Amino acid sequence: MKTILINGLVLTMEADWKPAYLDIVINDQRIEKVEQLSDDERKQYINQGYQCVDMANKVVMPGFVNTHGHAAMTLLRSYADDLPLQQWLEDKIWPFEAKLTADDIYWGTKLAIIEMLETGTTCFTDMYFEMEQVAKAVEEMGIRACLSRGMIGVAPNRDIALSESEQFISQWNQAAEGRITCTLGPHAPYTCPPDYLKKVVELANKLDVPIQIHVSETEKEVNDCKEMYGASPVKHLENIGLFSRPTIAAHCVHLDDNDIDIMHKHNVTISHNPSSNLKLASGIAPLKKYIDKGLTVGIGTDGCSSNNNLDMLEELKLASLIHKGNTYDPTLIPARKALEMATIEGAKALFLDEVIGSIAPGKQADIIAFSLDKSLYYPSFDITSLLVYSANSRDISDVFIAGKQIMKNRRLEFNKQEIFQQVQDRAQNIAKEIAATK
Amino acid sequence: MKTILINGLVLTMEADWKPAYLDIVINDQRIEKVEQLSDDERKQYINQGYQCVDMANKVVMPGFVNTHGHAAMTLLRSYADDLPLQQWLEDKIWPFEAKLTADDIYWGTKLAIIEMLETGTTCFTDMYFEMEQVAKAVEEMGIRACLSRGMIGVAPNRDIALSESEQFISQWNQAAEGRITCTLGPHAPYTCPPDYLKKVVELANKLDVPIQIHVSETEKEVNDCKEMYGASPVKHLENIGLFSRPTIAAHCVHLDDNDIDIMHKHNVTISHNPSSNLKLASGIAPLKKYIDKGLTVGIGTDGCSSNNNLDMLEELKLASLIHKGNTYDPTLIPARKALEMATIEGAKALFLDEVIGSIAPGKQADIIAFSLDKSLYYPSFDITSLLVYSANSRDISDVFIAGKQIMKNRRLEFNKQEIFQQVQDRAQNIAKEIAATK
Ligand SMILES: [Zn+2]
Ligand SMILES: [Zn+2]
Repeated sequence: MKTILINGLVLTMEADWKPAYLDIVINDQRIEKVEQLSDDERKQYINQGYQCVDMANKVVMPGFVNTHGHAAMTLLRSYADDLPLQQWLEDKIWPFEAKLTADDIYWGTKLAIIEMLETGTTCFTDMYFEMEQVAKAVEEMGIRACLSRGMIGVAPNRDIALSESEQFISQWNQAAEGRITCTLGPHAPYTCPPDYLKKVVELANKLDVPIQIHVSETEKEVNDCKEMYGASPVKHLENIGLFSRPTIAAHCVHLDDNDIDIMHKHNVTISHNPSSNLKLASGIAPLKKYIDKGLTVGIGTDGCSSNNNLDMLEELKLASLIHKGNTYDPTLIPARKALEMATIEGAKALFLDEVIGSIAPGKQADIIAFSLDKSLYYPSFDITSLLVYSANSRDISDVFIAGKQIMKNRRLEFNKQEIFQQVQDRAQNIAKEIAATK
Repeated sequence: MKTILINGLVLTMEADWKPAYLDIVINDQRIEKVEQLSDDERKQYINQGYQCVDMANKVVMPGFVNTHGHAAMTLLRSYADDLPLQQWLEDKIWPFEAKLTADDIYWGTKLAIIEMLETGTTCFTDMYFEMEQVAKAVEEMGIRACLSRGMIGVAPNRDIALSESEQFISQWNQAAEGRITCTLGPHAPYTCPPDYLKKVVELANKLDVPIQIHVSETEKEVNDCKEMYGASPVKHLENIGLFSRPTIAAHCVHLDDNDIDIMHKHNVTISHNPSSNLKLASGIAPLKKYIDKGLTVGIGTDGCSSNNNLDMLEELKLASLIHKGNTYDPTLIPARKALEMATIEGAKALFLDEVIGSIAPGKQADIIAFSLDKSLYYPSFDITSLLVYSANSRDISDVFIAGKQIMKNRRLEFNKQEIFQQVQDRAQNIAKEIAATK
């Protein structure tokens, strides 16, 4: 498919970007050109069979990159909140997850994808199980994803998880016309012993994929790690050799200065999940230090039991606000940085910045548009500030992924009611089963 | 006007509320009855001329009470962000405000009211100037408001501000069929010397109105106050006798234990403004202490230059999340408490809880409804959790204020485009004038 997007106010997220009226030429999956076209040039493209989409009065930017989550956990939305962490996990989350079937994962992921598309996410990251179902949903629905089968090294199925990961990656890496990329997903240092993590590194080398892992989400796990291994989780993972692979570390709420040096040395990237860290009372990550050090920080929503939505615009606003207040520095994470974290920095965090994250020739055409005709966009002095501090994700009107228009004036071509009903019935049945065994 | 709202899932916000299918009988401005009506009873009401509004598949609750703000500051939205506090105030906010005319205030307030109605706020609090214009906009647009003329005791117009306040209150308190109530609005202890505040207390006694004032928003003002008066702002205000009047203290980011005891002793209420406190890097209020002590805490958005929207749903979510993360307590401010803070506690904070804040016979019919047919409300295990942790204010479908339906399936009867354009033109002209004098 060939398309030109004309008349939009474009925020490219390329170095030194500023909002500018630019036209975007899309050839099949990729962006071919980004510049203001003359009327003649536009006509030539149209004559060559390019469809012309008018973005007048819209703000156009790269789609959001969600760097951490567990998509099918939509099934657990509003099932368990406001509980102490152990009670939440042991009484609620784990028993529920234990009952999830492949079909449940499929429908839960589809629900997540609906929500992500409607809130402008064009690429999401996932670490869960029954990942073939996730890949199937991604393939069908046209979104981009970075997928990993979660692996718990202390679980009975630890070896199966490794071989399933290898199998999954062989089958799905670069599938769905390249929209799916894969990583290995060892859950965390506290659930994966060193020998297991070493096997993960070996496999990552063999398959040549990055690794994503939860790191230092809570103070407790940092203290436990120090007690058990005499090192912080970050130091411990370095010792094991995990950081010899490109690594995405989710959360990183509790890193000390030495950890930050290690992260920097190995270019370990961070997925910052402010809503989840606040809601689960994990704490507030020292983002100022990470940014000052030059670490790559993307934004993630985490799963719907600890957020409880997948709205990247809410997440980037929170990321922008919370660190200002927490460090008494109103200049920290200004609006443009927040937008970058949710797009190009997210792409870097996933090691996909040559493919996505900005609007530039050669990159995949993952593009969203905002229609800013509501009260909260007046007056308009600074579009970047409006998008970060005022905007509502419902004003995202259009979504293109790999050159294909998936959402058009807020319309998706999916049977949403079927997905809602499937998820409602499946989730409620599981809850009933659990209640019955108590 | 007489109305019955039937079939809604109602969250009354009365003591020990839980979501329940209840019908609401509204007679003129007030709620007459809240209970499940039989078909016969419904028919009787309809025969008596009650219009019947079907709330099937909707969640019905009291409208949000915004306990602190400066409505017309919508005019400054996106004009100045991400700056150090003094630069923000001195180079941007004050020069802009100095140029605001009565007409500007009128249109800026109308814009704010559009946004508040569309996000479910039925009562807002305002402290600004040219308050007749604000009152006029409130009267015309049907919202409820608690208004005060801001008074700066170190400004040349300090005495005029007092007499204008008295004049304003005489004219507007209980006006607009009771939708307008007034308070006195001395800006803050650091802008109002003790002798001035004493005059304010005198006047408040004479007019029998509460006082609203900014208190301990930043650490600096607390330290300055201690240096100047040998007491914290709270202690200082107690010494002056201000708390002999019902008082609403906005912000309260930096109170110590002694301050909290004083607040409790005099039943001084708090307006908590998390977005503003984060964005301006004022800090994070110790809400756990306030709640443990039993202080009344409502939620406020503050003005649009430090937020930058008026969305109470965003604000209550933030209030619920941030203190969990900041105190490592995931049970703090659970979903139901967050909803209460935005409704009944807000009404208490404004000393209006006999009039608004819950759905109960005798109270004003200030009611909103949510239509939850989007992906982010599935599955539905707990409606309270969904409203706080997942919801988007765009799903607020209906707004009733004083028994009158102001928003109907998201439609308002105002000429929004005119308001947008007026605000855009006026704000841009002021910015141009300022730029020209530099
Ligand atoms: Zn996670
Ligand atoms: Zn204020």
